[in-house]
Amino acid sequence: MSTAAASSPPSRSTAVDELVARLGDGVVVTRPETIEAYRRDWTADASAGMPLAVVRARTAADVQETLRWASAHGIPVVPRGAGSGLSGGSLAVDGGVTLSLDRMNAVEIDVACRVAVVEPGALNAEVKRAASEHGLWYPPDPSSFEICSIGGNVATNAGGLCCVKYGVTTDYVLGMDVVLADGTLVTLGGKRLKDVAGLSLLKLFVGSEGTLGVVTRAILRLVPAQPERSTLVATFASVSDAARAVVGVCAEIRPALLELMDTVSVNAVEDYRAMGLDRSAGALLLAQSDAPGAAAALEIATMEEVCRQAGTTECFVTDDADEGEAFLTARRAAFPAIERRGAILLEDVGVPVPVLPDLLAGIAEIATRHGLEIPVVAHAGDGNTHPIVVHDAASPASVAAAHEAFGEVMTLAIGLGGTITGEHGVGRLKKAALPDQLGPDVMALTRRIKDALDPQGILNPGAIL
Amino acid sequence: MSTAAASSPPSRSTAVDELVARLGDGVVVTRPETIEAYRRDWTADASAGMPLAVVRARTAADVQETLRWASAHGIPVVPRGAGSGLSGGSLAVDGGVTLSLDRMNAVEIDVACRVAVVEPGALNAEVKRAASEHGLWYPPDPSSFEICSIGGNVATNAGGLCCVKYGVTTDYVLGMDVVLADGTLVTLGGKRLKDVAGLSLLKLFVGSEGTLGVVTRAILRLVPAQPERSTLVATFASVSDAARAVVGVCAEIRPALLELMDTVSVNAVEDYRAMGLDRSAGALLLAQSDAPGAAAALEIATMEEVCRQAGTTECFVTDDADEGEAFLTARRAAFPAIERRGAILLEDVGVPVPVLPDLLAGIAEIATRHGLEIPVVAHAGDGNTHPIVVHDAASPASVAAAHEAFGEVMTLAIGLGGTITGEHGVGRLKKAALPDQLGPDVMALTRRIKDALDPQGILNPGAIL
Repeated sequence: MSTAAASSPPSRSTAVDELVARLGDGVVVTRPETIEAYRRDWTADASAGMPLAVVRARTAADVQETLRWASAHGIPVVPRGAGSGLSGGSLAVDGGVTLSLDRMNAVEIDVACRVAVVEPGALNAEVKRAASEHGLWYPPDPSSFEICSIGGNVATNAGGLCCVKYGVTTDYVLGMDVVLADGTLVTLGGKRLKDVAGLSLLKLFVGSEGTLGVVTRAILRLVPAQPERSTLVATFASVSDAARAVVGVCAEIRPALLELMDTVSVNAVEDYRAMGLDRSAGALLLAQSDAPGAAAALEIATMEEVCRQAGTTECFVTDDADEGEAFLTARRAAFPAIERRGAILLEDVGVPVPVLPDLLAGIAEIATRHGLEIPVVAHAGDGNTHPIVVHDAASPASVAAAHEAFGEVMTLAIGLGGTITGEHGVGRLKKAALPDQLGPDVMALTRRIKDALDPQGILNPGAIL
Repeated sequence: MSTAAASSPPSRSTAVDELVARLGDGVVVTRPETIEAYRRDWTADASAGMPLAVVRARTAADVQETLRWASAHGIPVVPRGAGSGLSGGSLAVDGGVTLSLDRMNAVEIDVACRVAVVEPGALNAEVKRAASEHGLWYPPDPSSFEICSIGGNVATNAGGLCCVKYGVTTDYVLGMDVVLADGTLVTLGGKRLKDVAGLSLLKLFVGSEGTLGVVTRAILRLVPAQPERSTLVATFASVSDAARAVVGVCAEIRPALLELMDTVSVNAVEDYRAMGLDRSAGALLLAQSDAPGAAAALEIATMEEVCRQAGTTECFVTDDADEGEAFLTARRAAFPAIERRGAILLEDVGVPVPVLPDLLAGIAEIATRHGLEIPVVAHAGDGNTHPIVVHDAASPASVAAAHEAFGEVMTLAIGLGGTITGEHGVGRLKKAALPDQLGPDVMALTRRIKDALDPQGILNPGAIL
């Protein structure tokens, strides 16, 4: 596709004029300085394209109008939420329009039905806050929950820390309005909790990364407020011991959170901000129980016993909420701590829980071979890990090694019966590896669905496929 | 489509000969007496067609071979599990073949990964039993769990009693092998717990009722064994009071089970087998907590208080497992009890929980107007109800009234923001009402997916669409 601006064919600028005429100048942004802010997501990928314009939709009708226009002209549309994506799913494309949903951010709580009716631009944290005012809770909690949007969460089927007990985004989406490529708005599902009438189209759109339609409203299931959490922190001599504890814990109870940090990430956090973590630990497990009342102590005791049997070197428990939160803060500090060590490529590979030790050993080998540091933090209870490939952006050799290592980690995960992405999505950054995981027949099936729903290929081209 | 046997065109019997040659005589059943046993499901619909043959597949390769053959000849294939379906999803079609998966019933438990790897013909109860041998639990529990197959559960996205806390079948399907219309076998998902690589094709096949492919293997998530359950039984003067208690309970805790019986079904059960239920009650709620240890008593106390505030006329609690099971037996006795009162048409409508009273009042009005009895039992915590239209099969007027009432109940549910089916599926019995719920645009979208995956329309034609 040709780049926009001066070099774009005249028909394109005529098309943009038509879009402005349809939607208004305040909705269609064409100022290059403003467009610039909408070109990239958190991957900060330098290869992001230059869009003709950014549409900042106010209503579902604006979204419909944009897609009718795009269909008529065959112009690509990249839907965009808060721009916090980690796999390049909302990187702008040359000659397309970026359709930002950031203005559509209404949140309405239906207390009796225990659902939130949410526009896609609302932040995850805003939904949580609105629900909590009524003693309700929206569980999915990506680490970025304060700044990521529900639209993006639905598009990527986002996960988080509490998934190990409470599931991921798709488990909470009861209904949605979605605008199809031709501008048709369809309503799927609703406020009922169980519904098997017709194909599971709702579930197909969750995780489709803007390639099948644009979600303009989501109906999200809420549950009663989470009870107080008790916390356990256990250190282990090796990642393999810690992984055995993870398998053991999940066979006995359903912890509310079960995170792992390897020794490199523990030390990165300590370098960044001394938090008193044991630098000599081969791995650290952070677990929580939110079982009601006295049952939390029971679950914590169970986990402590499992950790002892797996050879924990030190085990600390607390039911003080602030103390527990301090450990979570240390865990969340891993990303900024590691970012201080160099440029990063963030992985999201997942494997069956019992092969976590093999995955982590393999990653250590890849790091050594390429002379790179690859610290790992993990939603260990789900087998979902975030190896972080640290490198020197100023050194072409380091950048090349990092990209090689990035690919090798995905290949390793696939070889272990795992996935290249557990919660971030494929986007544009991981799509080269997708056929290696899915194989030609599943790729062909994916293409048939895509072609059936977006025959012109205007919806987020270059993402996933 | 023409009927088989003598009137079928010669090409059909040649085609069957070819199928026998490909699969063997022991796999392809052509004896009319044997075929008869595979023509209907529990709906016992007299309009079931006459298939050319029944294939009793032993392996996924048999399924592939059958579909390659069917594609080559353009012959319809009706997949069939245990034949316990309640909406006619596996009724045979004239001139087609019924593809029975009853021989493929292997169950393998991977303890470390906490998954069951299951062939489609295995019964739900067999999976539960195999899991329990390792201290694990497969939660989805249709009332028919002792006799329904996992393949059918996946095909209908089956629910049950514990869904209110533990979710439905789709929440437990981590992976599957599925044979497409042309015989291609694809593997989706796997033993990893989180996976967002590519479109959610896995979730699309769950609940597709055999119209998109034939599942030959499912990987099912298991959780730790359910703790002991405590039970609460509360009676109310009216269904509306009981429904207020349901809303109140679900706003505070997540009960492990929350069932409702209306006064007609309570009396039907007492007529059938005296269980000491209060015949004068307007409605009865049956709830359980499985919170660990002392927390169960806490949850039961919370539910008791909510029931008192909603005006319960009597509230009984027990943590005796046998006593709790006796009440569940009474609840499960509702179907046989009601079947003794006449021929039945079984509904599966669902609504948002707060409008349950409106749904039940509307059903009572429909019953009165048609001079029919329509008792209701409900998975109340999910808003999923089973009104049962009792009628006299020997009276054409009664049969006509029952079918009218059946349709009116679905229309009522749709009008209340609900669904025509919460867990049984659309099959052939409810498909006339599906467009009323989904509307033309969603029907068109459904058709596009169907055509993309089954362009010849050979997979379970007449179901859903």
